[in-house]
Amino acid sequence: MDYQKLSTYVDSHKSNFLNELGEILKIQSISADPSEKDEVHQCAEKIADMMRAASVENVRLFETEGNPLVYGDYIHAPGAPTVLVYGHYDVQPVDPLNEWETPPFEPTVRGEDLYARGSTDDKGQLFIHIKAFETYRKLFGDPPVNLKFIFEGEEEIGSVHLDPFIRSHKDLLKADTVLISDTAMYGRDLPSVCYGLRGMAYLELTVENSSFDLHSGSFGGAVENPAHVLADIVSKLHDKYGRVAIPHFYDDVLAVPEEERREISRLPYSDEEFLRQSSAVAPYGEFGYTTNERLWIRPTLDVNGIYGGFTGEGAKTIIPSRAAAKISMRLVPNQRSAEILDLFDAYIKQIAPPTVRVLVRKMHSGEPALIPIDHPSIKATTEALETVFGKKPFYIREGGSIPEVLTFQEALGAPVVLLGFGLPDENSHAPNEHLYLKHFFDGIKTVAVLYDKLVGK
Amino acid sequence: MDYQKLSTYVDSHKSNFLNELGEILKIQSISADPSEKDEVHQCAEKIADMMRAASVENVRLFETEGNPLVYGDYIHAPGAPTVLVYGHYDVQPVDPLNEWETPPFEPTVRGEDLYARGSTDDKGQLFIHIKAFETYRKLFGDPPVNLKFIFEGEEEIGSVHLDPFIRSHKDLLKADTVLISDTAMYGRDLPSVCYGLRGMAYLELTVENSSFDLHSGSFGGAVENPAHVLADIVSKLHDKYGRVAIPHFYDDVLAVPEEERREISRLPYSDEEFLRQSSAVAPYGEFGYTTNERLWIRPTLDVNGIYGGFTGEGAKTIIPSRAAAKISMRLVPNQRSAEILDLFDAYIKQIAPPTVRVLVRKMHSGEPALIPIDHPSIKATTEALETVFGKKPFYIREGGSIPEVLTFQEALGAPVVLLGFGLPDENSHAPNEHLYLKHFFDGIKTVAVLYDKLVGK
Repeated sequence: MDYQKLSTYVDSHKSNFLNELGEILKIQSISADPSEKDEVHQCAEKIADMMRAASVENVRLFETEGNPLVYGDYIHAPGAPTVLVYGHYDVQPVDPLNEWETPPFEPTVRGEDLYARGSTDDKGQLFIHIKAFETYRKLFGDPPVNLKFIFEGEEEIGSVHLDPFIRSHKDLLKADTVLISDTAMYGRDLPSVCYGLRGMAYLELTVENSSFDLHSGSFGGAVENPAHVLADIVSKLHDKYGRVAIPHFYDDVLAVPEEERREISRLPYSDEEFLRQSSAVAPYGEFGYTTNERLWIRPTLDVNGIYGGFTGEGAKTIIPSRAAAKISMRLVPNQRSAEILDLFDAYIKQIAPPTVRVLVRKMHSGEPALIPIDHPSIKATTEALETVFGKKPFYIREGGSIPEVLTFQEALGAPVVLLGFGLPDENSHAPNEHLYLKHFFDGIKTVAVLYDKLVGK
Repeated sequence: MDYQKLSTYVDSHKSNFLNELGEILKIQSISADPSEKDEVHQCAEKIADMMRAASVENVRLFETEGNPLVYGDYIHAPGAPTVLVYGHYDVQPVDPLNEWETPPFEPTVRGEDLYARGSTDDKGQLFIHIKAFETYRKLFGDPPVNLKFIFEGEEEIGSVHLDPFIRSHKDLLKADTVLISDTAMYGRDLPSVCYGLRGMAYLELTVENSSFDLHSGSFGGAVENPAHVLADIVSKLHDKYGRVAIPHFYDDVLAVPEEERREISRLPYSDEEFLRQSSAVAPYGEFGYTTNERLWIRPTLDVNGIYGGFTGEGAKTIIPSRAAAKISMRLVPNQRSAEILDLFDAYIKQIAPPTVRVLVRKMHSGEPALIPIDHPSIKATTEALETVFGKKPFYIREGGSIPEVLTFQEALGAPVVLLGFGLPDENSHAPNEHLYLKHFFDGIKTVAVLYDKLVGK
């Protein structure tokens, strides 16, 4: 391919691409919020329209009991490999809304970044694939590989309907490589390929006592306070070495070879940069592991939200009738989410006091994944990144989860290439989510180049 | 006095009294909510109007930097003792609103009770005094005692302006007895006089790390989670015997004579009734004390609210940037709130980890009080209760706080009579607050009878 022609075309269409991306970023497709169900559906339709406009064929929505899946393909390279592109058009909730510098659904360019909920996770990255295909076809004709696209609207709530869809549509989705752009590069202009993801198990832990809030004067001291019990339980979820204290939690954790740990230690890393990205007071985690190891090769448990009693302005003197915590555990190979949730449940039953009712509600979960990095698709991806970024990419893991990676691997027997264009500090689940524009445009170029590299061109 | 005449008059005016009370219960005088400031003021004006209509004289609002104080008097018994009646017209917040069976500001009679925010705490009880005065004067002419009324609008937020007002208006408020109806009787038709109150110290404890919520995949395991630290701290506020674990917390607790503990143990009590009132799973508290002792003679610490991170529907995978708890401590003689807050602060400084920022914000506070039960006013109150209820009252303490009791005692040198007509299970700070109607009407009778008993009539 004439790479210069591609690069010039993309560079001269930046504002067109941004405007088009803006149209889907404006749609409030928050899958966790049942009241936004119509918006989520509208987003799916908009993406389908954009795919048709880009000449993707057989575009259709597969309705589910939840949000629709958007499918499309372009099969014009007989005998050549097929690439299945996955992405998701649903986004995280936006609260706390008051911490956004510009409204989450009004895309705004500030400096080198585009700010909007979904800009990096994952609408912006999904959009890269639509534009890469459109651009390739416009400049060079039919791509040398066959393409299939599957975009879902429930990634942020556990991909509950995608999983059975993949398993029941193996022929439709059959591919030689699955290509996913929903991860981060190691840093700005530090291209990287991701070969490992953590899994997740999410649950809600509730401690209940009275059926209504009690006056803390009239009852304080004579009944158990659910917030105290919740605090006691949460404090027993880790030991003083930062390890998860649930019995047998680490039993199935795959040992990581010393060589891989050495590779991780060679990656550029500084506490200063980590603290800049996280805005945290200090690095902190499991004793005996580095920050990257804690994020990539070790499982964790985090309280995502805690609540109970009076949380408004001022003071209210009550004993809460209940208190609850939303808890997620990030898992590594070969932990399995169902088993981990059972271990959590058993531990809570063991430590729950007799003075209250303690309930565990299992929510969504997904499995961790490791990608075989010696596969030809990974080699092609490496070459594509080198072409566009002008330097060799790093091989990294990621702390986040894309539960479907394991499903794709297992159901389709295809390797998954994690070619993410995000950055670790783009606030993907926080206020002021943004996308580094250079990676966005370089992403379009990289994916277009990858079509060629996958057939050795 | 002709008690039968009084009793018949009150009984035949029940619906009038209820309708009038309804007018002030409808006003949303939530002092903790700054947006309700106008409603709070409107409530003060309405009460002043009602006092004037009842022939109270010199009725006026004293404006403060917060909510107004309502004053009025009726000084027509030269040489006779003066009674200062205190009450408050502000109410607790109403959340969780969805747990109210009928809206909090739409007074509704169900069965033997009147449901509304403020019905028992304290608008209903304040109203008893206006109606008792009006009724006495209508039936029997000028009462044999001089009366002063002071009603405040900031009791639920720490009486910040009443305290200095009392100290700077000692002449205006000068009295021989302070009469307060803001406590509960021991049970339905179990008349009682309260001789002790707990104090309170209220604060907010915040744990902060990052300046925004972090993606729990991208950062989970490598930074301290503020919700975990908050849980650790809260779990260290009590020991396993239910004692508050703050060093020196109990140093100033006055030993309670064995005789008083024996008296308390003689009161009618059953776990079944306590659990019915509290709807709690089990009695639980400091080892070595009975339920009534835990509520009356022992100090406590309770989390009133806990919050941080994602608390909406569904799941969001973040590490909260901060987590906080609202905490109140109920104090007993001779603990002092300022000292207790300092001890809390010092303990938190000692146990706070270096991986986060931990902040203590002191909020309102009030001192515990003991009433001399051998005072003639207590004897008169006992006789009044016996007249109306037909049985001897119990002498009890209360777990709640009326910080002004100590201020009245200290500033005016007058004994405080705590003649409450509420009940422990009337949800005074919870959804579905209500007032037992029989006590409301008997309260009007009791206060009218008390005027006579105070002068030995």
